[in-house]
Amino acid sequence: MKINRRKARPVEIGNVRIGGKYPVAVQSMTKTKTADIEKTLTQIKRLEGFGCEIIRVAVRDSEDACAIKKIKRGAGLPIVADIHFNWRLAVIAIESGADKIRLNPGNIYKLEELKYIVSAARLAGIPIRVGVNSGSLSRNFSSAKMPIHKKLVVSAMDYIRKIEKMGFRDIVVSLKASSVLDTIEAYRGIAGHCDYPLHLGVTATGLPFSGVIKSSIALGSLLREGIGDTIRISLTRPPEEEIKAGRLILQSLGLRHFGPEVISCPTCGRCEVDLIGMVAQLEKKLSSLGDLGGKKKPLKLAVMGCVVNGPGEAAEADLGVAFGRGQGLLFKKGRALRKVPVSRTIQELLKEARGLYV
Amino acid sequence: MKINRRKARPVEIGNVRIGGKYPVAVQSMTKTKTADIEKTLTQIKRLEGFGCEIIRVAVRDSEDACAIKKIKRGAGLPIVADIHFNWRLAVIAIESGADKIRLNPGNIYKLEELKYIVSAARLAGIPIRVGVNSGSLSRNFSSAKMPIHKKLVVSAMDYIRKIEKMGFRDIVVSLKASSVLDTIEAYRGIAGHCDYPLHLGVTATGLPFSGVIKSSIALGSLLREGIGDTIRISLTRPPEEEIKAGRLILQSLGLRHFGPEVISCPTCGRCEVDLIGMVAQLEKKLSSLGDLGGKKKPLKLAVMGCVVNGPGEAAEADLGVAFGRGQGLLFKKGRALRKVPVSRTIQELLKEARGLYV
Repeated sequence: MKINRRKARPVEIGNVRIGGKYPVAVQSMTKTKTADIEKTLTQIKRLEGFGCEIIRVAVRDSEDACAIKKIKRGAGLPIVADIHFNWRLAVIAIESGADKIRLNPGNIYKLEELKYIVSAARLAGIPIRVGVNSGSLSRNFSSAKMPIHKKLVVSAMDYIRKIEKMGFRDIVVSLKASSVLDTIEAYRGIAGHCDYPLHLGVTATGLPFSGVIKSSIALGSLLREGIGDTIRISLTRPPEEEIKAGRLILQSLGLRHFGPEVISCPTCGRCEVDLIGMVAQLEKKLSSLGDLGGKKKPLKLAVMGCVVNGPGEAAEADLGVAFGRGQGLLFKKGRALRKVPVSRTIQELLKEARGLYV
Repeated sequence: MKINRRKARPVEIGNVRIGGKYPVAVQSMTKTKTADIEKTLTQIKRLEGFGCEIIRVAVRDSEDACAIKKIKRGAGLPIVADIHFNWRLAVIAIESGADKIRLNPGNIYKLEELKYIVSAARLAGIPIRVGVNSGSLSRNFSSAKMPIHKKLVVSAMDYIRKIEKMGFRDIVVSLKASSVLDTIEAYRGIAGHCDYPLHLGVTATGLPFSGVIKSSIALGSLLREGIGDTIRISLTRPPEEEIKAGRLILQSLGLRHFGPEVISCPTCGRCEVDLIGMVAQLEKKLSSLGDLGGKKKPLKLAVMGCVVNGPGEAAEADLGVAFGRGQGLLFKKGRALRKVPVSRTIQELLKEARGLYV
């Protein structure tokens, strides 16, 4: 099974390209005051370490907008300026070196203001994200008699047409709703209306557990249909969790590979070993093995508690173990390797995993 | 947006009905030795408290199969016996009062054995789940030259036809793969081939975070297409987390409502309050309010950090708060209620929430 991606017109955000055949990029947004350059840079570097590829910062005032200049110097990844209400901030952010700006059609819509921003973006050679949110639709659309997902599409397309009339096509689009079903329908709608790359996200997803679930359903459904060129998982949590979730969504769909994938059974009355503990231990060991995680090679490890699905899943993985009768049976590339004592299983699995990477 | 559910032939599992217009049931499986009746019952009661509606137990030997009799007396929800390899265990489990049995076509396939099990199930008036797993396909199908999702469908349909020829139609079907894409394609395939209720699940999902993500993508995609009558989230974690995740998936899609839904923004440089802390506090307070959670009335609460999407999302929710300028603005059913100090926000939200439930 492979996903057929929608062919979007490629766009450059700093040194990252999205759309076309470029991989789906994982992005996040800082939760610090942007003008607090030290704190913002610390968070950006931390996110970079977790695999963030594009970072957005909130621009509330000219101090935030000007801070982008210094942030750019210290950061290793493209900076996107998030602009609302005030067109002047967009222009200052562009002058400060932002690699992309995000505009909200719900709060910056006057044609003369938009023209000015578009000229600045064109001169700087940076793209604009048309970012519509269900919570901030302009009055023209919010009161219209149509379902919310249509309002999002109509509102975005109206704004896009205006920008296109200015001869500008360096556009990325997002349509975020807080409902999973509306989000999916909105993106499906816009995907058929234009060829711009799509930035996927659910807005206001809520508590951590439900945030991950909502984003996985909405973004997973869309990505599986080939829709989406960059993703942001919004969580009311530290931003590194957004990156972790985003990467796992892409990896689950086979769209990207960020390191070994571990599959394990849920355990049941058949399991005679502490599988939950072992898998937790394996997860820890794998994440500390920079040499493994860094190579970004697809590698599937299976840890299975019994003989029902164990041998089958273990044999289908690159490496696997199935427990039974007080020992583990190791598998490598589909063939049974050897029996190992339960206590040495994780160690042996890691040894074999390293071997596959050499 | 509403989901159009596939019309499945209804099936009774103890006092729970699935298929047709019956709500999608949330189920789990015990991780204890079934013959350890005390431990198993303790886990079942705990799961019941978390909202589990059907519980499956592993049957490894006749001791496990006989234990079902006593477990049934203490448990308040239907018991499903999970049978592999040994047809005798199926018959003992049925005699012990199991409300449904699960058979794996990969390891119980001899026609005479199957006939005997089907007669026992017919006499007891209980359904059979035909549960195919990618890790335990019978050799006939595992070596066939076709994609894994087709093997799952063909293998299930072959077994179903055998059972149908015995005049038995009290069937539930599952087709679990450890890959998200294969799982989705397999269920889409079977949904077009028969009208039996479908038990959805991804097998061997792996580490906790990725397990929730894989299940959300696969089950979310299918449920949104109307496919699925009962779900089990397999996690290598304590089983109550499986229930929590399952309920959140159904609630995110509007298929069921288990209590108030909280939506909150991810926070960014615009946010001037400790929103992450407040939302965590709200989550805790809501879960301890039995009177709120128990009524299962859809109620949407929004907690938003700033004035960009805040007022819009808060006004769309049943109750909401948007922060700005050092205070919170409360909304109720779309209308601004009053301003509240930041420190009293959660308290005031809970007060209003209780009011809506009276």
